[in-house]
Amino acid sequence: MTELVLRFRAPDRPGIISAIAPLLATHGCDIRGAEVYGDDDTGGFFCRMRLSSPTAGRDALASVIEPVACELSLSWELHDLDARMRVLIAVSKFGHCLVDLIHKCEIGQLPIEIVGVVSNHETMRKTVEWHGLPYHHLPMGEGKAAQEAAFLALIEDTGAQLIVLARYMQILSDDFAAKLLGRCINIHHSFLPSFKGAKPYHQAHARGVKLIGATAHFVTPDLDEGPIIEQDVRRVTHAVTADEMVAIGREIEASVLSRAVRWQAEHRIFQNGNKTVVL
Amino acid sequence: MTELVLRFRAPDRPGIISAIAPLLATHGCDIRGAEVYGDDDTGGFFCRMRLSSPTAGRDALASVIEPVACELSLSWELHDLDARMRVLIAVSKFGHCLVDLIHKCEIGQLPIEIVGVVSNHETMRKTVEWHGLPYHHLPMGEGKAAQEAAFLALIEDTGAQLIVLARYMQILSDDFAAKLLGRCINIHHSFLPSFKGAKPYHQAHARGVKLIGATAHFVTPDLDEGPIIEQDVRRVTHAVTADEMVAIGREIEASVLSRAVRWQAEHRIFQNGNKTVVL
Amino acid sequence: MTELVLRFRAPDRPGIISAIAPLLATHGCDIRGAEVYGDDDTGGFFCRMRLSSPTAGRDALASVIEPVACELSLSWELHDLDARMRVLIAVSKFGHCLVDLIHKCEIGQLPIEIVGVVSNHETMRKTVEWHGLPYHHLPMGEGKAAQEAAFLALIEDTGAQLIVLARYMQILSDDFAAKLLGRCINIHHSFLPSFKGAKPYHQAHARGVKLIGATAHFVTPDLDEGPIIEQDVRRVTHAVTADEMVAIGREIEASVLSRAVRWQAEHRIFQNGNKTVVL
Amino acid sequence: MTELVLRFRAPDRPGIISAIAPLLATHGCDIRGAEVYGDDDTGGFFCRMRLSSPTAGRDALASVIEPVACELSLSWELHDLDARMRVLIAVSKFGHCLVDLIHKCEIGQLPIEIVGVVSNHETMRKTVEWHGLPYHHLPMGEGKAAQEAAFLALIEDTGAQLIVLARYMQILSDDFAAKLLGRCINIHHSFLPSFKGAKPYHQAHARGVKLIGATAHFVTPDLDEGPIIEQDVRRVTHAVTADEMVAIGREIEASVLSRAVRWQAEHRIFQNGNKTVVL
Repeated sequence: MTELVLRFRAPDRPGIISAIAPLLATHGCDIRGAEVYGDDDTGGFFCRMRLSSPTAGRDALASVIEPVACELSLSWELHDLDARMRVLIAVSKFGHCLVDLIHKCEIGQLPIEIVGVVSNHETMRKTVEWHGLPYHHLPMGEGKAAQEAAFLALIEDTGAQLIVLARYMQILSDDFAAKLLGRCINIHHSFLPSFKGAKPYHQAHARGVKLIGATAHFVTPDLDEGPIIEQDVRRVTHAVTADEMVAIGREIEASVLSRAVRWQAEHRIFQNGNKTVVL
Repeated sequence: MTELVLRFRAPDRPGIISAIAPLLATHGCDIRGAEVYGDDDTGGFFCRMRLSSPTAGRDALASVIEPVACELSLSWELHDLDARMRVLIAVSKFGHCLVDLIHKCEIGQLPIEIVGVVSNHETMRKTVEWHGLPYHHLPMGEGKAAQEAAFLALIEDTGAQLIVLARYMQILSDDFAAKLLGRCINIHHSFLPSFKGAKPYHQAHARGVKLIGATAHFVTPDLDEGPIIEQDVRRVTHAVTADEMVAIGREIEASVLSRAVRWQAEHRIFQNGNKTVVL
Repeated sequence: MTELVLRFRAPDRPGIISAIAPLLATHGCDIRGAEVYGDDDTGGFFCRMRLSSPTAGRDALASVIEPVACELSLSWELHDLDARMRVLIAVSKFGHCLVDLIHKCEIGQLPIEIVGVVSNHETMRKTVEWHGLPYHHLPMGEGKAAQEAAFLALIEDTGAQLIVLARYMQILSDDFAAKLLGRCINIHHSFLPSFKGAKPYHQAHARGVKLIGATAHFVTPDLDEGPIIEQDVRRVTHAVTADEMVAIGREIEASVLSRAVRWQAEHRIFQNGNKTVVL
Repeated sequence: MTELVLRFRAPDRPGIISAIAPLLATHGCDIRGAEVYGDDDTGGFFCRMRLSSPTAGRDALASVIEPVACELSLSWELHDLDARMRVLIAVSKFGHCLVDLIHKCEIGQLPIEIVGVVSNHETMRKTVEWHGLPYHHLPMGEGKAAQEAAFLALIEDTGAQLIVLARYMQILSDDFAAKLLGRCINIHHSFLPSFKGAKPYHQAHARGVKLIGATAHFVTPDLDEGPIIEQDVRRVTHAVTADEMVAIGREIEASVLSRAVRWQAEHRIFQNGNKTVVL
């Protein structure tokens, strides 16, 4: 048996599950778990099912789902959970998120394959290469357009399905961001929508907040405004300096980002307007 | 349209959803949300669906589900979400959980109808009656057997579907606990399985823990060992006295208990061996 | 012996503790606990000490502290912990924070004396009076100026030392806010600085955040910008409606506000520019 | 100026601060921050002060503190915050805590100097040596006594002031544990006192708890019973497998352990009977 994930979305209408479920049964697929969410605000209908299926059942299943999906105007995907998502990680100089992702991947806690690391700096090369991963230095020297073109080429060459901005301190051009829509996750080092932009922990320190946090979100042309995937916070006091907030924040960032990456790799995340549905 | 909850459990086998979903569709029921969980350890299969159904569809729907449920040996329930669960609350002298439940019920945050309050003391009568709720003083004077018999009679008279032990400081007899299996929720004023038994916050203080918590669980004959429904904790320091821990704990208890009661009233909780599945 | 709190602040300079501590010793005061914080950014120096002192020692102590305090240009206070802070609570129509404060006060968990409740509505009268507390209906009918004048008169008549805006849905005039500087705490029903202004939970829902929270802060003429005292958050998902967020938020609001009130009643909070120091 | 930490404990009696503070002033030491805690249960008195002192003032200061400390029977320490604590880390096969400590140390977030890593396995050698740290393989082959003797010798050779058991899966002999009293921190992969002993996450999974956690504590001969330094938890559901709990737990373990190590390196932790005081 293989483990599959069937996920689909549709304009909300009755009968979707009753049309899909029998197909699965007739092909010997057992629904091991499922979550269905109908959004009354947007009228969107979202479903993720975890199936155990007789080996080699995948294509047969896909071929019978297709016509029904058409009829119901479902947009759907069928994923083999054994196939690890190909992930390209982008960093600048800070390695805490990168190191965390690599470590969790190495000890089998993240179902991803890291196909490479991109950076506008050389800082992380030694670490990355020691872990046996390809390091691609794409400096901003020839300008953003050229660098983003090289970045995009690399995404295509590596067949990356997910791009993770793990403290990549470059603002993507609208055009580049648009090309990555839905497959690029950024960790914002603050609890959005608070403290957008630069030095958020220093902003937080100046405001005297009692909790600081981090936010993982999909990248969109609208900086810091993409759909939020996950957030977390940690308690701080008046005695915590801005630099200590940065240090505390790094741990939250790594933790939040790795959760968002895991959920994406497990095909749990749907975009729903400017929000996410995580099933 | 009315909102229904269809929930069922079964020995895990393929085809359950594919058998049920079409029935719903043919009766014009729309699946607004659903969660399915198959437990690989126990082989149990659990499902909760939120349906919007044409009014008066409930009985028609039930009648068509019955034969299929038999065939699949499903144990199933169909609930009208407009029908508030009838709840009987038991307390002793401490009112913090009681007051919280009553308040949340009054402001429409808890979908329950409080049919009465039972106590082995008179302490809470004034509060309860001021809120227009019947107060039943069942002292232990004539012994536990007599008191529990009166308690049981009251449950029958009031038609209570859920009994909430909101800091009811009496140990139920095995026989009474067995009679309430699956419909009685207790708040244990500690983070189980730590600090079972009496004065848990004082135990916690003596042990110097840095977090204290509370646990809502189903009542079983095996004291403090029933299936856990919900837990929460709060941070404490060396400077927090045992009495302050009690005070902090009360807030956690009220919050945790009200969540457990809500979930039960929304028909979300399944017992799964000595654990719970909350869908 | 009586329990005293000595608190003081000063422009930071060496020798403050070494000047004060001996005075305490010579008057038989034992330092049971103390916290000192020197803020390197603002240059402020803050200290709170919990003293056990021979009864009737208070005035004697004050008289010897005064000259030294002058010399060191300390601004200082000496409080008897047995003297409960006199608190006036302001509400509009929502009672969740009010009920929580009253209940915690009644069961001895909040070291305050509630001297009355002010409201621009009649909604909470019945509840407040049942608890034996005076209810003052100050409608906005004759305009804000008149109403605030009446409010201010009430503060003076009741000798209130702390005014708690427990979901009081009126914007104070700059003048009124200025008069209450440092003795008025508001609960803002969001995690500031996010979602300022009206319907914050609906704003949060629209933004799709994964955590919602509440903030207790001192009231200043600059709405929603006063020094933050305490904050907390709770996890939410895509499936939580805006109304459910409001419900969840109420529990956070009550909890956060009661902590801020407790700390103020225990003389723990200092204003430090636009921030707080909580010792 | 240099930053010093003066910490002391004493049998509780009045006048301690008033005796110490003037000494600091006369030697030009400024108290930048301080915390004092008198434990009414144990009668212990604990103080930690952060001082800024004229360079080279340390020894002069120590020499004047000594006689007063004798008189007051203080046990005291004076630390230069620039002097990083020498830490020896012990691991077995799991590297998540080790990697986290090394990374935080490398990016300047932990004020420690890692003087080496001890292991009863070779698993982590490559990682440790790549970071330029000495790796000491002390197999259990010749028996626990011999291995612990070698371990102890290594502690002396390296001048380690703190030994961190970062998932070191060996039970120390009573004799060895006694020798390390107060200078050895262990991370227990559960929320003590729940789930002591082996496979705690599997125990937690079997019990169906809704929160899992980790505990950092001082090592004592009494296994899993040493004074608790820090704890944290993360939320889990029925759907989280035991193996996923292990994975989630690793993140909590690393976070909790690094906080405990930081506090010890900052000289914040006092043992107080079987509890800790963290100032």
